[in-house]
Amino acid sequence: MKLPGSTEWLLHCATSLAQLEPGETASAAQLAEYYDLPAPYLAKQLQALVRAGVLAATTGPRGGFRLARAASDITMLQIVEAVDGAASPYECREIRQQGKGALPQEECRSICVLARKMADAHRAWRQSLRGVSLADILDELPEGAPQRTRSRLTGITPPRR
Amino acid sequence: MKLPGSTEWLLHCATSLAQLEPGETASAAQLAEYYDLPAPYLAKQLQALVRAGVLAATTGPRGGFRLARAASDITMLQIVEAVDGAASPYECREIRQQGKGALPQEECRSICVLARKMADAHRAWRQSLRGVSLADILDELPEGAPQRTRSRLTGITPPRR
Repeated sequence: MKLPGSTEWLLHCATSLAQLEPGETASAAQLAEYYDLPAPYLAKQLQALVRAGVLAATTGPRGGFRLARAASDITMLQIVEAVDGAASPYECREIRQQGKGALPQEECRSICVLARKMADAHRAWRQSLRGVSLADILDELPEGAPQRTRSRLTGITPPRR
Repeated sequence: MKLPGSTEWLLHCATSLAQLEPGETASAAQLAEYYDLPAPYLAKQLQALVRAGVLAATTGPRGGFRLARAASDITMLQIVEAVDGAASPYECREIRQQGKGALPQEECRSICVLARKMADAHRAWRQSLRGVSLADILDELPEGAPQRTRSRLTGITPPRR
């Protein structure tokens, strides 16, 4: 049971984009440089976040990616499932209905109890990730982090405050 | 994120073995026939449950597999992790420490907040499966199921009661 390695990339990229000011964007090339990742593959993965409604892509000379919604409206679950889909890791192939021990059809009208318990566990996993927004993640970063992220990611020097 | 297909096999095999009477066993060949599964590969997988302390293997003419502990002491988590290991599906490769955005080492002494939240979700998944024993599963089977399982699995005709 393994999530794609790009799950880490996209969680971090979304967290970085969440630290930009309104109106700012970062390109796939900037994000790739920021995390030392292969740009073409990262660009493809970022499109998955666009399709999932997590990021918005703008075109033009200052084009790039930004959050499509408020950081408080984007959950870790949405990002993880944009990469890997929402299917349960457990696949029930109904072996209860095959072989010498095959159950009669009338006993298989409802989901197998084992599949049901595995689904409960998957639900608990999803519930946990649904409970964490990007805003929650930002709340845990050290104080100076967003300013540093912005300046390193986009090259925009933050104004003195 | 996918569990091996044999996860379903082993959950069902353990559930069937949990329905035998004390002293009874079933061989890999009997279990394979019961569920119409490839016997050699199933036998190999059953050994993983033996190594995990879920099943005991006995040798000799009446040899086979039985539960190594009471059904109430065997959880779904133990079976699933015997097949697939206990590692989290999320792998943190510390990309926060690489590239132009690399964080200073003193900010990386504790686990990345994203990895921590992913670990929380994995913990919730494990907790859910740890809360379900084979005895809980048996409690949900229809009344005549254990007798039917025994007679089809081992060929032992149950006594009239």
